[in-house]
Amino acid sequence: MTAIVKGDLLYTGKAKEMYTTNDPDILWVAYLDQATALNGKRKVAIDQKGLLNNRISSLIFKDLAKHGIPNHFVQQLSDHVQLVRRVKMIPLETVVRNAASGSFERKFDVDHLTKFATPVMEFFYKSDALDDPFINDSQIEALGVATQNTLTEMRRQALLVNQRLQTIFAEMGVQLVDFKIEFGLTDQGHVLLADEISPDSCRLVDEKTQQSLDKDVFRKNLGDLTTVYQEVLTRLAAVEGSQQ
Amino acid sequence: MTAIVKGDLLYTGKAKEMYTTNDPDILWVAYLDQATALNGKRKVAIDQKGLLNNRISSLIFKDLAKHGIPNHFVQQLSDHVQLVRRVKMIPLETVVRNAASGSFERKFDVDHLTKFATPVMEFFYKSDALDDPFINDSQIEALGVATQNTLTEMRRQALLVNQRLQTIFAEMGVQLVDFKIEFGLTDQGHVLLADEISPDSCRLVDEKTQQSLDKDVFRKNLGDLTTVYQEVLTRLAAVEGSQQ
Ligand SMILES: Nc1ncnc2c1ncn2[C@@H]1O[C@H](COP(=O)(O)OP(=O)(O)O)[C@@H](O)[C@H]1O
Ligand SMILES: Nc1ncnc2c1ncn2[C@@H]1O[C@H](COP(=O)(O)OP(=O)(O)O)[C@@H](O)[C@H]1O
Ligand SMILES: [Mg+2]
Ligand SMILES: [Mg+2]
Repeated sequence: MTAIVKGDLLYTGKAKEMYTTNDPDILWVAYLDQATALNGKRKVAIDQKGLLNNRISSLIFKDLAKHGIPNHFVQQLSDHVQLVRRVKMIPLETVVRNAASGSFERKFDVDHLTKFATPVMEFFYKSDALDDPFINDSQIEALGVATQNTLTEMRRQALLVNQRLQTIFAEMGVQLVDFKIEFGLTDQGHVLLADEISPDSCRLVDEKTQQSLDKDVFRKNLGDLTTVYQEVLTRLAAVEGSQQ
Repeated sequence: MTAIVKGDLLYTGKAKEMYTTNDPDILWVAYLDQATALNGKRKVAIDQKGLLNNRISSLIFKDLAKHGIPNHFVQQLSDHVQLVRRVKMIPLETVVRNAASGSFERKFDVDHLTKFATPVMEFFYKSDALDDPFINDSQIEALGVATQNTLTEMRRQALLVNQRLQTIFAEMGVQLVDFKIEFGLTDQGHVLLADEISPDSCRLVDEKTQQSLDKDVFRKNLGDLTTVYQEVLTRLAAVEGSQQ
């Protein structure tokens, strides 16, 4: 790989800035030191958050690749930056749930953390204008958002991700309640895991203390986000046997 | 069949009263002269509505059976009463959409009556307490509401119902925009079309005038419900070649 040079700002998201590079297949991702809630309506600067999520996401993506789940991660470049393979994002959030929480718990009035016999999977249509509505396969097809084949492949990969993440987090003494991932399509039309996997996108509960170890700390003002994310990184790095 | 005798009131719904009979497999359904909206929060007495829906539903169920789609309908007994086969209701509303309207239009901000290349299908969990939430297959399975096999069979039958209903309504000069049906399970575990099919549960648009010929007339105060339902019955009876 020739030296990668940062190019133009492509997109400023709620958690990351995406830049082009001199390689058309590679994006430069800067993880931001900020947290948002309520679909971006609430936004707060948080020291170290970008650094922590960049490291956590890098470790998880590397682990997944090692365990047979390809993804967009290429390399961590610096504290806040990682390089990823550029894909055409599929505008769907794929949510996998191992136990009831959040919108599921509210919508169906089931007890908090009721375990599911098999993981529940949901798609949300990624559209700030529409407020990310819950969407089913038939609607996805009708709106031309993705084909049935693509959804089947997303489901397959999401279940593999869930299995591996559950193993990692169990080794960290953490229950993986649910998580959100995003996929893109490569030039060859293959479904590839992209975006990030971090405490921003996972619902994590300490198995001993039942403490939230994720963005709910911020959403619900349960404590200091940096301390909690640092704890997740420390445990993850120990499991992955790597330097923090 | 021995003479059917009306038994105890089993259930008072928003549109019908269900009674047992001397035959444990047969229910006595009294169609009510009332209309509700907003999940029952608004309720108004409407002369003739029960009679009209009873006749319309009877004609449609008979037509469907004749065209190879079995259903719970047994016999129309009187102006307001029909006998049906008792089933264990599956607490799901199955919605089939041929064009965008109502919640789909609002949720996804698409133009009114945009046609779909293939019908859109949605399930709603029938629960007044939960306000009938939109639900996907994975959630249905997790909550134990229905098995994947049952959903597959419901989808198959719903598409057949859609095909036949589109034909009937086309002959009546009416566009079938969308409709809601309900299924139950027989003692043998077979999925059987039940409940009703009427202007209460279909979104119908006159092909010439673009006038609403369904409960939207009531929901949106567009005119006199009885006149509109009578028009639907008149056209349907003409197509079905039967006395009104
Ligand atoms: N490999 C990739 N190629 C192209 N776009 C990506 C890739 N990975 C993530 N993205 C997109 O980058 C954007 C920035 O991320 P983020 O700050 O999380 O945005 P958002 O506000 O949409 O959550 C998102 O729209 C995400 O879908
Ligand atoms: N064949 C059947 N066997 C048992 N229950 C039925 C059958 N057909 C319809 N039902 C149920 O009868 C009830 C009365 O109908 P309705 O007045 O439309 O009630 P709702 O207020 O639930 O819409 C509904 O709960 C419906 O599911
Ligand atoms: Mg994001
Ligand atoms: Mg009803």
